[in-house]
Amino acid sequence: MTETISPSRRARGGGGAARRAERTAVSVETAKYIERNIPNYEVLTEEALQVIERNAETVLEEIGVNFVDNPAALDRWRAAGAQIEGERVRIPRGLARKLCSTAPSEYIQHARNPERSVVVGGKNLVLAPVYGPPFVRDAEGGRRYATLDDFEKFVKLGYMSKWLHHSGGTVCEPTDIPVNKRHLDMLLAHMILSDKPFMGSVTEPSRAQDSIDMCNILFGAEFVQNNTVMTSLININSPLTFDSVMMGALEVFAANNQASIISPFIVGGAMAPTSVAGTLTQVLAEALAGIAYSQLVRPGSPVVMGAFVTSIDMNSGAPTFGTPEASHITYGVGQLARRMNLPYRSAGSFCGSKLPDAQAAYETANSLNMGLLSGVNFMLHACGWLEGGLVASFEKFVMDADQLGALHHFAKGVDMSENGQAMDAIAEVGPGGHFLGCAHTQQNFKSAFWRSELLDYKPFETWDEEGARDTQALASARVKRLLDTYRQPPLDPEIEARLRAYVADKKASMPDSFM
Amino acid sequence: MTETISPSRRARGGGGAARRAERTAVSVETAKYIERNIPNYEVLTEEALQVIERNAETVLEEIGVNFVDNPAALDRWRAAGAQIEGERVRIPRGLARKLCSTAPSEYIQHARNPERSVVVGGKNLVLAPVYGPPFVRDAEGGRRYATLDDFEKFVKLGYMSKWLHHSGGTVCEPTDIPVNKRHLDMLLAHMILSDKPFMGSVTEPSRAQDSIDMCNILFGAEFVQNNTVMTSLININSPLTFDSVMMGALEVFAANNQASIISPFIVGGAMAPTSVAGTLTQVLAEALAGIAYSQLVRPGSPVVMGAFVTSIDMNSGAPTFGTPEASHITYGVGQLARRMNLPYRSAGSFCGSKLPDAQAAYETANSLNMGLLSGVNFMLHACGWLEGGLVASFEKFVMDADQLGALHHFAKGVDMSENGQAMDAIAEVGPGGHFLGCAHTQQNFKSAFWRSELLDYKPFETWDEEGARDTQALASARVKRLLDTYRQPPLDPEIEARLRAYVADKKASMPDSFM
Repeated sequence: MTETISPSRRARGGGGAARRAERTAVSVETAKYIERNIPNYEVLTEEALQVIERNAETVLEEIGVNFVDNPAALDRWRAAGAQIEGERVRIPRGLARKLCSTAPSEYIQHARNPERSVVVGGKNLVLAPVYGPPFVRDAEGGRRYATLDDFEKFVKLGYMSKWLHHSGGTVCEPTDIPVNKRHLDMLLAHMILSDKPFMGSVTEPSRAQDSIDMCNILFGAEFVQNNTVMTSLININSPLTFDSVMMGALEVFAANNQASIISPFIVGGAMAPTSVAGTLTQVLAEALAGIAYSQLVRPGSPVVMGAFVTSIDMNSGAPTFGTPEASHITYGVGQLARRMNLPYRSAGSFCGSKLPDAQAAYETANSLNMGLLSGVNFMLHACGWLEGGLVASFEKFVMDADQLGALHHFAKGVDMSENGQAMDAIAEVGPGGHFLGCAHTQQNFKSAFWRSELLDYKPFETWDEEGARDTQALASARVKRLLDTYRQPPLDPEIEARLRAYVADKKASMPDSFM
Repeated sequence: MTETISPSRRARGGGGAARRAERTAVSVETAKYIERNIPNYEVLTEEALQVIERNAETVLEEIGVNFVDNPAALDRWRAAGAQIEGERVRIPRGLARKLCSTAPSEYIQHARNPERSVVVGGKNLVLAPVYGPPFVRDAEGGRRYATLDDFEKFVKLGYMSKWLHHSGGTVCEPTDIPVNKRHLDMLLAHMILSDKPFMGSVTEPSRAQDSIDMCNILFGAEFVQNNTVMTSLININSPLTFDSVMMGALEVFAANNQASIISPFIVGGAMAPTSVAGTLTQVLAEALAGIAYSQLVRPGSPVVMGAFVTSIDMNSGAPTFGTPEASHITYGVGQLARRMNLPYRSAGSFCGSKLPDAQAAYETANSLNMGLLSGVNFMLHACGWLEGGLVASFEKFVMDADQLGALHHFAKGVDMSENGQAMDAIAEVGPGGHFLGCAHTQQNFKSAFWRSELLDYKPFETWDEEGARDTQALASARVKRLLDTYRQPPLDPEIEARLRAYVADKKASMPDSFM
């Protein structure tokens, strides 16, 4: 893995002030997106993959999918050779896959700071934070409706997280802002408070267009037409249904060469069969139809094949996370996506727990590990998810973001160079010795092992004297420290003024709506 | 995976009493050991494996290993063709590997209840609890020195854990019992309070012999000579040193056809190089020498190739757990062990945290997942480990033991039968429907998804009204409930009396020693 670290943006100043700043500043280095130097884990055999692919084509041909309230989409499908009956689109065997073949296998999503641009696809993994929670939680304030102030804090935390490559989208819902205007404040926050890449709005086609218009200000209109500057989340209404709001946003983004994650949204047992193979079949059919549609809108427009998958607790009906069945599906979709030569989105810091406790961490670690090994290229929800996605947790955000460092180090693979083989060290130390002082250790110890910046490694006595803090308490302190030391990344003041004017004008142009 | 569940041992009684018992009884079903129906994850290329194997042979030939205070071992090695110089044994290239080839690729470890016998090796995974902590912790009593009472409670919890196949060994150190006598009480507890397989004592060759003698009472002497009834833990003093205490115990077990896990004990950066490839080389060299020695004692005696590996925090010197470097090593040793056609022991509920909190769970989940995917056959420490192994945690024991259920379900692999494909369900439900009521769901929902017996899946409001408990609090209640409902598995009273008499006589035969 090439892991270029972009220059630190620490405070500058002469002499003692500089040294004090150096000691107290929180690092805002960002690791380059992960380039895997490790194999993927493949749970399905070639034969199983062929069965699922055949079955998915059968679903598209015989059952079909619904494109709801969208006559233009039906026209596009009809022209491409599908059978249309009402809103039902039946797609002849092989057609969807053929249409998908014009989608690129990878694309660059540009950030306003070119050092933060990411490549989505191939062996890469881009990590983005939690998306969508209406609530936030922290140790002091408990669980409460999210506000724009919370949203901005999360964007700042994301900007300061070394292992997070992407600023994300709706990190939480700013419920204090009208529904029809909050996308403007969210985009503004991502654009001004961070210099990492971000996501566009999908809750109305007009809001997707606002996203494009604001990007035109930030990047220049010509740059936006020729490059991808947003990756946005288009969920499919599983089973087999494409609604006009999401498809309308997709149409805007595809027409403007902006990337969409096209993602079946599955709670297994409710929106898909209880079985893994059945769910994989449905996910593939839905992804094929959605991605093919993006290519009907504009061939060559960048897309990511998504899969949001949880299973259901059949006793209570609650969605469950980090489960073995979700892992089977995540690994399986990875294999299917690679056979389509498409970037893949799945996994995340998923958990059902109400608190950032052991349950949350077990479930999250299960999902993060499988995300890395399943070949995910874009991991939304990589940090901060709590309570089945209802809550964005400040503490869990920094806890998960710290764990993402372990993924980076694992993805490096095993160094088989002469230095990695360390035969000199084994000879130097010999039987019964120790390696702490040997030459090889002295040369390598700084970079040898991943080290958490959050977790407790102290001796018991020290830890006990310092208050016997658990992970949540350590994370709470880290959140405060990060927010206290946050400094806005530089942005041309004229661009910032034009963005603020766009938002103000747009807000003034329509009445508030909370629907 | 074949997952034969042995019959429930619930309380019996007529009518209402039976129904009440049914409702309140804690299940003591035990799942059969895991038979993987999934591939292993292989982090090393063929070329890398060959480099490591070549380097390990170079280490054995040119550097050699020390067999300390053990003239008989030196004689055995000399007779086999090794070069002896003082206590140093240099092993010609290829000799150790050739000697290892007489070790079986798998073996049955018999339990006194035949339904609990396990097969160690092949595609199987046997799960055993934490081993060795001098301290225990629970929510009520905090951290304190372990006693025999604690030990017995852990054996009971292990017996009642559905996903734990093995009763383990020194689940915690009963520090209130003299060092030279506590092995007797530990063996007695495993033999009487559980009917799962267990481990022998290794802290003195005479204590290994006591383990054999007590097994002769429990199983019959002839059965013990012809079958394996213990798997015991022989650690190597890394780097490259074999002490006479551990080798003495190995000699007793091998001579009696009992299995030993031969395990380098590595804190990377201290007992091995800071690099993964260097550590793998040393682990392989040490395992080759130790396993070869077991076959010199008795060709064909069962052994497990072990690797206990953590890395070190180079800032504080503390061992760290669940790290990416430990994962690389665990996956790599799995590949090396399979190339030797030997059972493999590694991974566990490893963590450095002082509390059963999120840190503990992240680190543990990282290790448990990699243990499953790396092809581990015997996972010691699969539940209950806390604070770098200094502490056995009652709450974490049941938390981890619950997570082990997820490993069982993942290991089943993906059902590709017609029922698994679920094409009828997708057709029945169609676009926009839901699967909760469809025929396929009704037929499959009971077994479709793994379900935690511990974690919280409740709606927020219910959870909040019930006291907003975190995972530790839920686990604390579960520990109490399990211990309250524990019932000793049936054992021939005459055998129990003979075991108790053996322990009493042995204790009376020597003065207490706490050294």
